[in-house]
Amino acid sequence: MAQCEGINNVLWDEKYARRARGMTGSAIRELLKLTEQPEFISFAGGLPAPESFPVAAVAAAAAAILRDRGTQALQYGATEGYRPLRELIARRTSTDAHVVAVENVLITSGSQQALDLLGKVFLDAGDRVLLESPTYLAALQAWNAYEAAYIDLPMDEAGLDPSALESTLREEPKFLYCVPNFQNPTGVTLSLERRQRLVTLAAAHGVPLVEDDPYGSLRFEGDALPSLLAIAGAAGGVIQLSTFSKTLAPGLRVGWVVAPAEVIGRLALAKQGTDLHTGTLDQYIVHELLAGGQIEAGLPAIVARYRERRDTMLAALAEHFPADVRWTRPTGGMFLWVTLPRGIDASDLLPPAVERGVAFVPGKSFFPNGGGENTMRLNFSNAAPERIREGIARLGSLLRE
Amino acid sequence: MAQCEGINNVLWDEKYARRARGMTGSAIRELLKLTEQPEFISFAGGLPAPESFPVAAVAAAAAAILRDRGTQALQYGATEGYRPLRELIARRTSTDAHVVAVENVLITSGSQQALDLLGKVFLDAGDRVLLESPTYLAALQAWNAYEAAYIDLPMDEAGLDPSALESTLREEPKFLYCVPNFQNPTGVTLSLERRQRLVTLAAAHGVPLVEDDPYGSLRFEGDALPSLLAIAGAAGGVIQLSTFSKTLAPGLRVGWVVAPAEVIGRLALAKQGTDLHTGTLDQYIVHELLAGGQIEAGLPAIVARYRERRDTMLAALAEHFPADVRWTRPTGGMFLWVTLPRGIDASDLLPPAVERGVAFVPGKSFFPNGGGENTMRLNFSNAAPERIREGIARLGSLLRE
Repeated sequence: MAQCEGINNVLWDEKYARRARGMTGSAIRELLKLTEQPEFISFAGGLPAPESFPVAAVAAAAAAILRDRGTQALQYGATEGYRPLRELIARRTSTDAHVVAVENVLITSGSQQALDLLGKVFLDAGDRVLLESPTYLAALQAWNAYEAAYIDLPMDEAGLDPSALESTLREEPKFLYCVPNFQNPTGVTLSLERRQRLVTLAAAHGVPLVEDDPYGSLRFEGDALPSLLAIAGAAGGVIQLSTFSKTLAPGLRVGWVVAPAEVIGRLALAKQGTDLHTGTLDQYIVHELLAGGQIEAGLPAIVARYRERRDTMLAALAEHFPADVRWTRPTGGMFLWVTLPRGIDASDLLPPAVERGVAFVPGKSFFPNGGGENTMRLNFSNAAPERIREGIARLGSLLRE
Repeated sequence: MAQCEGINNVLWDEKYARRARGMTGSAIRELLKLTEQPEFISFAGGLPAPESFPVAAVAAAAAAILRDRGTQALQYGATEGYRPLRELIARRTSTDAHVVAVENVLITSGSQQALDLLGKVFLDAGDRVLLESPTYLAALQAWNAYEAAYIDLPMDEAGLDPSALESTLREEPKFLYCVPNFQNPTGVTLSLERRQRLVTLAAAHGVPLVEDDPYGSLRFEGDALPSLLAIAGAAGGVIQLSTFSKTLAPGLRVGWVVAPAEVIGRLALAKQGTDLHTGTLDQYIVHELLAGGQIEAGLPAIVARYRERRDTMLAALAEHFPADVRWTRPTGGMFLWVTLPRGIDASDLLPPAVERGVAFVPGKSFFPNGGGENTMRLNFSNAAPERIREGIARLGSLLRE
């Protein structure tokens, strides 16, 4: 029940819901009914594979915590977060060149809250934000509430294209937002050379970089690239967001921000008025599993599973999609990006796709200032390989009509 | 550790922190050190008694949920909340005269989030909000971020004084916010006659009522009064907030809003950009304990405990406080309100009180537009009776100097 809700939620809320409002109520209900059928295959959501959740380890941690520290785990907590968890994150984020202290860490109620708090602290109506185009949809949802104005940064297969960067950095944006690893929605990773250039240019123009890194641990091949935070080091200027939603479980709603202490102080003040603090029991559970090494130990299995699913999807795309369709080949993460021939609007394909029992997110939702009608985002982390093959075959037959 | 943080957090964050910034860093550190000593007695926070948390029941619920529905309990969920929990709240909020449906319920990440979402949906800079004076501090913190303008409604021992209501309702406020039961900070309860008048007048002027009711279940004596929501009934116009923080445990961060479906829809859209959804495991735990009757079953013990502590505090105040000091006699809840002779500024008393190992919140923080320098809020739910006696004796000796 809840999982169906989750899937529908992610499917229908990813701005498609707004379009859908133009449809008649009964048409929507009919489509929604279809998505609830067990044979429905959704590539639309951003759900981790539930088989990857370390349910037994969470249960053991919860039992131990409630046995030994039950009253503390159920009491109000500090707005900044559970201190031992902040300390652990600080230690793990520190590099040889740059020590991250506990004062540089804020625990958030999922990474989404960090996006909202950034809006609350940094953005007044009309303030400019530099964004990859396409970009993470929920960042737009967070900042639309603060009436931000978006400046697009074009992307290619090596991430955001730095050639347009200098001129846009001069437009006095409040910050530049990017997802350097296995970006949502494209799956693309920002190259090392571009990371260095981005950090240098942003610093030269005094523009903070907001580095959103929910997927960095989910690398299928190749070596990890240094984060923008690590490249900037003690020079600062980077606000890094991440989450335990992809490496542990999203239902616990625990994310974090690493930033200069002054920024953390402001975000914490904003957080206090927003939800007082993040769930105490959830933070204790995350701390227990992080300190005990279970999150780290679970990563290889998640990575292997998602790698297999990516491979399955890539092979199915090659088999079933027409020759004039292109797609990205992500080296990690949860999503890939399909580009249809110009002139095809992916959102026109969604209702017939849903009727055939398969869903995706039309790509234009991810473009802050329009465009991308001929693109779509496909999630490969949630469905099992045989379902991926079947779903891509269904989409492929639709595209070949 | 965490609990100390919690106490300090509530103590120092309740706007006193802003004043404290004017103090030197070392002075603050010295004071903070004092509050961490085990013999320190804080009446400043708003913490429930941890002895009241049904730790074993939470542990049993968590174990059962993770055993039977582990992957669902750790997955993303719907923004509106876990549907069975919404249904249960809808059923329990319905009255003979007014059916509350699942579409009228939004689960929030604690009641604090409901305050923030109301600000996000209703308030633009300069928009007016009618408030009891004094009012709940964290509501001000939430709405300050949206640059609300506050109009004070004076209070007496029967709650907000309706005589000033008509003229202020004409000033086109976005809504009127009040805490009718055992108000924070005063402990005062709005009389039945005034509730009826408030609902009638607000409806006549088309001003929504935001009824915040975190403490309604904590009644020590007398009969429960109908909520504003119940009085308005099907006529609508009331947005009711509540929480499981006082009847179960605050660390789970589960609150809710009951409102017309259109309002819930807008709040849910705002919530989606704010934190996607409230913790899934937390909601499952709350649902399990609500459905199983354990929350209801635990109330008499909480009420008995808080009643004893209120009685202890009232007796200690009568014994130790000077004759020219007055205080409220709440019939429920967690707080009482002390009025010192005019000319005494309670915030001047705080540093010497902390040096004697006792803390309170100076009352002026609770006044949206100034005033109340000679008042203070005392929490009686958190400390054991002998600590309450000792703490009030310490404050009394300070006041008698």
